[in-house]
Amino acid sequence: MEVVCLDLEGVLVPEIWINFAERTGIEELKATTRDIPDYDVLMKQRLSILDEHNLGMKDIQEVIDDMGPMEGARDFLGWLQANFQVVILSDTFYEFAEPLMRQLDWPTLFCHRLEVNEQGKVANYHLRMKNHKREAVVRFQELNFHTIAAGDSYNDTHMLNQANQGILFKAPDNVINEFPQFPVTNSYEELKAEICKSSPRF
Amino acid sequence: MEVVCLDLEGVLVPEIWINFAERTGIEELKATTRDIPDYDVLMKQRLSILDEHNLGMKDIQEVIDDMGPMEGARDFLGWLQANFQVVILSDTFYEFAEPLMRQLDWPTLFCHRLEVNEQGKVANYHLRMKNHKREAVVRFQELNFHTIAAGDSYNDTHMLNQANQGILFKAPDNVINEFPQFPVTNSYEELKAEICKSSPRF
Repeated sequence: MEVVCLDLEGVLVPEIWINFAERTGIEELKATTRDIPDYDVLMKQRLSILDEHNLGMKDIQEVIDDMGPMEGARDFLGWLQANFQVVILSDTFYEFAEPLMRQLDWPTLFCHRLEVNEQGKVANYHLRMKNHKREAVVRFQELNFHTIAAGDSYNDTHMLNQANQGILFKAPDNVINEFPQFPVTNSYEELKAEICKSSPRF
Repeated sequence: MEVVCLDLEGVLVPEIWINFAERTGIEELKATTRDIPDYDVLMKQRLSILDEHNLGMKDIQEVIDDMGPMEGARDFLGWLQANFQVVILSDTFYEFAEPLMRQLDWPTLFCHRLEVNEQGKVANYHLRMKNHKREAVVRFQELNFHTIAAGDSYNDTHMLNQANQGILFKAPDNVINEFPQFPVTNSYEELKAEICKSSPRF
């Protein structure tokens, strides 16, 4: 009995902050933990930039809604849900993911939450737990699930290592080189094939 | 951040064995653990009755497909998924649930599995773990989720007790009387209201 754990951004939907920065033309929002290693400092900066530009949650969700899921993501996820149990593990926030989850017919998503004040502005952020992707995989294994995980970046590698089978999807070269133990996939067809390979039912 | 755990049979879909017995006219399949308390003896009997009647997995799934979900279940589940993270916790088997899960657009389901042989007959059954409903709720709580659970029968009461909020849905009187700590709901509208009452976001 199997659970497939999927990263969200870069696997089913675009990178939300980067895409948001491009669509709004706000260059400073392109900063990532590569530029500002302290996540709390980075997030506080992002929230204050949103505030400076007078962007409330409704405005943000409209921009994210327009992004849409990646091409083929809906069909891939539909196939996956018909053949496996699926839980999406992401470091994004429910409020950001919402417009995209609606377009994917509301798959189960474990992530974090934003605090929105009465004026509809993002007041703060709340991480549900540290390293929650790996922790979730551990819990599914404790429930006797064979666990298959797929992701694209550094913050997925703990989850991929913990899973019975980890798979890289459209990962950058540095991640591929640093983690040669994971099969590399670059299309949904390749990812499907690797997931099936890890399942005794296929 | 919340996860809602739903029982399946009696909450979203009909009781599968009872409904199957009615539709096929095989009276002996109406036996439950009330008649044969040893679950293993009961299951072995059920599988041998299926075999005697020459019913393979394909035949069984056709009968179950015709049952369909309960009236209003699709809309209720759609509303729930748009507002909460949902995992269905059931003591049925993936192979039985499949035709109904398709009609509910493949929500995430944790249950058990049947073993089907090369002739398409049900050869055996495999329970993923004992008391897995309660165990799953514990794991979601360890992942810092506020957990709301709803079910209709005795085998749900451990999960309801473990959850931050347990709710009975269309439960028989003996269960209602024995577990007065749980709010009682008898329609999806009442269940929605109780779930919202337990969430700080509503």
